[in-house]
Amino acid sequence: MPVPPLPEQVHDLLRQCAATVTTAESLTGGRLAAALTAVPGASATYVGGVVAYATELKVSLLGVDAGLVVEHGVVSAQCAVAMARGVRALTGATYGVATTGVAGPAEQEGKPVGTVHVGWCGPTGEHSLALGLSGDRAGIVEQTLDHALAAIAEQLRQDLTGR
Amino acid sequence: MPVPPLPEQVHDLLRQCAATVTTAESLTGGRLAAALTAVPGASATYVGGVVAYATELKVSLLGVDAGLVVEHGVVSAQCAVAMARGVRALTGATYGVATTGVAGPAEQEGKPVGTVHVGWCGPTGEHSLALGLSGDRAGIVEQTLDHALAAIAEQLRQDLTGR
Repeated sequence: MPVPPLPEQVHDLLRQCAATVTTAESLTGGRLAAALTAVPGASATYVGGVVAYATELKVSLLGVDAGLVVEHGVVSAQCAVAMARGVRALTGATYGVATTGVAGPAEQEGKPVGTVHVGWCGPTGEHSLALGLSGDRAGIVEQTLDHALAAIAEQLRQDLTGR
Repeated sequence: MPVPPLPEQVHDLLRQCAATVTTAESLTGGRLAAALTAVPGASATYVGGVVAYATELKVSLLGVDAGLVVEHGVVSAQCAVAMARGVRALTGATYGVATTGVAGPAEQEGKPVGTVHVGWCGPTGEHSLALGLSGDRAGIVEQTLDHALAAIAEQLRQDLTGR
């Protein structure tokens, strides 16, 4: 039997967990939400999310601590986790997943193009993944999308097994 | 000279207006944000937005009046405009654009697949566009995306001319 695409795996696992997910996107800028909502029946397990492209929105809407931004920058594991935590609190979803990083063309905060952090959280804790990706703007976004979906799928599998 | 793709036109017009845009997406589920953020330099004119897939998020996060939802449904011009207004207030962007409708596979609120409303607002007022689209889920989303981008581009052109 062929393995279903990652977005379908995530929705299947969420159904098995009787859980929902939400997204907070900087680097992926809506691609993660779009991948999840492309699956028919998505509304049962995906509530929606926030595209927090401007730093102000990360702070004002997602509740990312302004001091954290000053200390670590928005391209950081700390910011990715805080975004995931913030959107989870904002929406009441069971799991939150967030992306932040440098898609290019220019570096940001002195961090090179391809520096990416994925953060996620749920009932069993908070996690992050640091990536150094190659490629153009679209390629970095697509790779990040796959990593974010794989991370939340693996977390859901762990949480299902650990019950 | 070839006409640039719609997302680039929107960013160019926003720059000419010294304005920003934000998005509130139900039907397009992040595709509109993704199209706008795919353009290098997008952060100067796109602040971010909300994917309000669940009705609760339309109400709690975007401030859509619950009575409006009861009276007109979420698949309505009234809801599309209220979503655009809500996300504009939430983010402080100059313009807000919103999508809501039935992508399928099933009908919703007794409205057939392909019923779509695009709403937008800015300094010169609030507007909406009702569409009856054909196609599969992905096709309806892509057509709505084009209509939403064309609507905001045309509004920006009018607002530039009317100054």
